Amino acid sequence: MKYSIGVDMGGTNTDMGLVTENGNIVQRRNIPTNAYTELEPYVRDMMREIESMVDGQSAIDGMAVQLEGIGIGAPNGNFYTGCVDNAPNLTIKGNLNFAKEIHRYRDVPVVLSNDANAAAYGEYVYGGARGMRHFIMFTLGTGVGSGIVVDGKLVHGSTGAAGELGHNILVPHGRRCSCGREGCLETYTSARGIVQTYCELAHVEPSPEITSKHIGELAHQGDPVALKTWETVADQLGLAMANSVTFSAPEAIFLMGGPAQVGEPLLKPLRAAFDKYLLNIYQGTCQIRMSELRANEVAILGAAALLKMKEQ
Amino acid sequence: MKYSIGVDMGGTNTDMGLVTENGNIVQRRNIPTNAYTELEPYVRDMMREIESMVDGQSAIDGMAVQLEGIGIGAPNGNFYTGCVDNAPNLTIKGNLNFAKEIHRYRDVPVVLSNDANAAAYGEYVYGGARGMRHFIMFTLGTGVGSGIVVDGKLVHGSTGAAGELGHNILVPHGRRCSCGREGCLETYTSARGIVQTYCELAHVEPSPEITSKHIGELAHQGDPVALKTWETVADQLGLAMANSVTFSAPEAIFLMGGPAQVGEPLLKPLRAAFDKYLLNIYQGTCQIRMSELRANEVAILGAAALLKMKEQ
Repeated sequence: MKYSIGVDMGGTNTDMGLVTENGNIVQRRNIPTNAYTELEPYVRDMMREIESMVDGQSAIDGMAVQLEGIGIGAPNGNFYTGCVDNAPNLTIKGNLNFAKEIHRYRDVPVVLSNDANAAAYGEYVYGGARGMRHFIMFTLGTGVGSGIVVDGKLVHGSTGAAGELGHNILVPHGRRCSCGREGCLETYTSARGIVQTYCELAHVEPSPEITSKHIGELAHQGDPVALKTWETVADQLGLAMANSVTFSAPEAIFLMGGPAQVGEPLLKPLRAAFDKYLLNIYQGTCQIRMSELRANEVAILGAAALLKMKEQ
Repeated sequence: MKYSIGVDMGGTNTDMGLVTENGNIVQRRNIPTNAYTELEPYVRDMMREIESMVDGQSAIDGMAVQLEGIGIGAPNGNFYTGCVDNAPNLTIKGNLNFAKEIHRYRDVPVVLSNDANAAAYGEYVYGGARGMRHFIMFTLGTGVGSGIVVDGKLVHGSTGAAGELGHNILVPHGRRCSCGREGCLETYTSARGIVQTYCELAHVEPSPEITSKHIGELAHQGDPVALKTWETVADQLGLAMANSVTFSAPEAIFLMGGPAQVGEPLLKPLRAAFDKYLLNIYQGTCQIRMSELRANEVAILGAAALLKMKEQ
């Protein structure tokens, strides 16, 4: 049977999965990314876990696993070079050439991209964007990422770094961003940005118990400041989404990530803001939809999906 | 010899040209668009002029012209449908099916798109974007248009209406736009937007002699209010351009149109603003360049270039 490997390389953990043609994860493993400072031992241990999944599944199937390849979603992952370039949140530093290192162990295709691109492609291959030629994925989390599909292909751009809509400047001279500039979408609609908005509206100091999840629970209990927070976030995200439509006129914009799990307190005002800010010629042509992939599967499925690009 | 026809359909005039493989316009004609209220007589007269160009060139060449097709750049022109849909600035109303009407006279390929898309594609086939896989064109004029090339293909989106960056909302609750919304890039960097900024800075009422061209002349004479106007426009356009880079990571952003002809009073602060607003990962990867096509040729060449998409 044919399978592919999806690797979700996060700053803390690396999750790996053996994925069927239909997008079922039948084996999972993980290793602690932050226990490594060098690529060589990291890939050695990663490959040991991958071979263990392959062997385990071969035993279950009663026949050898045919491995289509290894797809990797990683911070700063570059599709063109197959490298991770100096990702600030990784303990493994430098220019990391994954394909070269992996090929010491197994001669299979290796495809790599950043995590938001991988998530978008996972939605395209296994999720709600199947059959769509044009869509955009926004991922809300510690940061705000995006992946853009135009004419059925992930947009990588001239450098491989296309699709950073979280760093669209939404508010000139607005909040200070980790990128060094001001007013990026990410400073308003990331988990941290949402917390900041809540604290400003509630006139309280940030504290560890105030998280975007907590603000979501408060909203479901009817807390007016929490509801106002989500309306504010929705207005900002709705404007950014409406602006992104002027670029590629997508059929849908997908949303995923922890803060998006709050549901209606965000989604209802988000759809209203999107309609309000959308240019008339696009009215009725683009839906806002939640990702159809499970939160604990999307990263692995997205990484595995990257291998399907080879077939295009 | 092989030629193609480029048709630039404007609200006032329709310019037509017979174009060589290398992008030389060897014959030109025009008819007054606003003298027509129906498609049928308009296309009849358009085809009469086209046949006259073909006959004239055949006589010059001493052999029959081989016509590759007719490319049309038109307001609201839709690549997918080949139609012009209810363009507000045309006297010919309704859903205009050009291909169908043209085929009553000649059985040649007909390709149609909006004028900014055509300009971008003209730059790609005949101008400074030759060989580039990713670039964006901004056209400044009565409005602000854009055309986007990703992976060597013009982005049309799911509806055919992609690439309307002039209607990116730059300033929430900003200037009222003709589209009915507020704060669109077009309200600041179109000819009219530039005049409005000058009048605001100079504390004068708008009058017929205050045009973007006049403000350009004043800037070259060192007028401080005119210089400040172009700096303001440059800051706004630079921000919009930097934001567009987060989408497709282009190799270059091209600029064309009347107001862009002012040159350094706009370009110098524009490059500075672009650098200031550009995300660090894109620094040094994207140039701002002026269109390399002549102002009086770009529309015809762009329309003719659309035919090259058929070959991809």
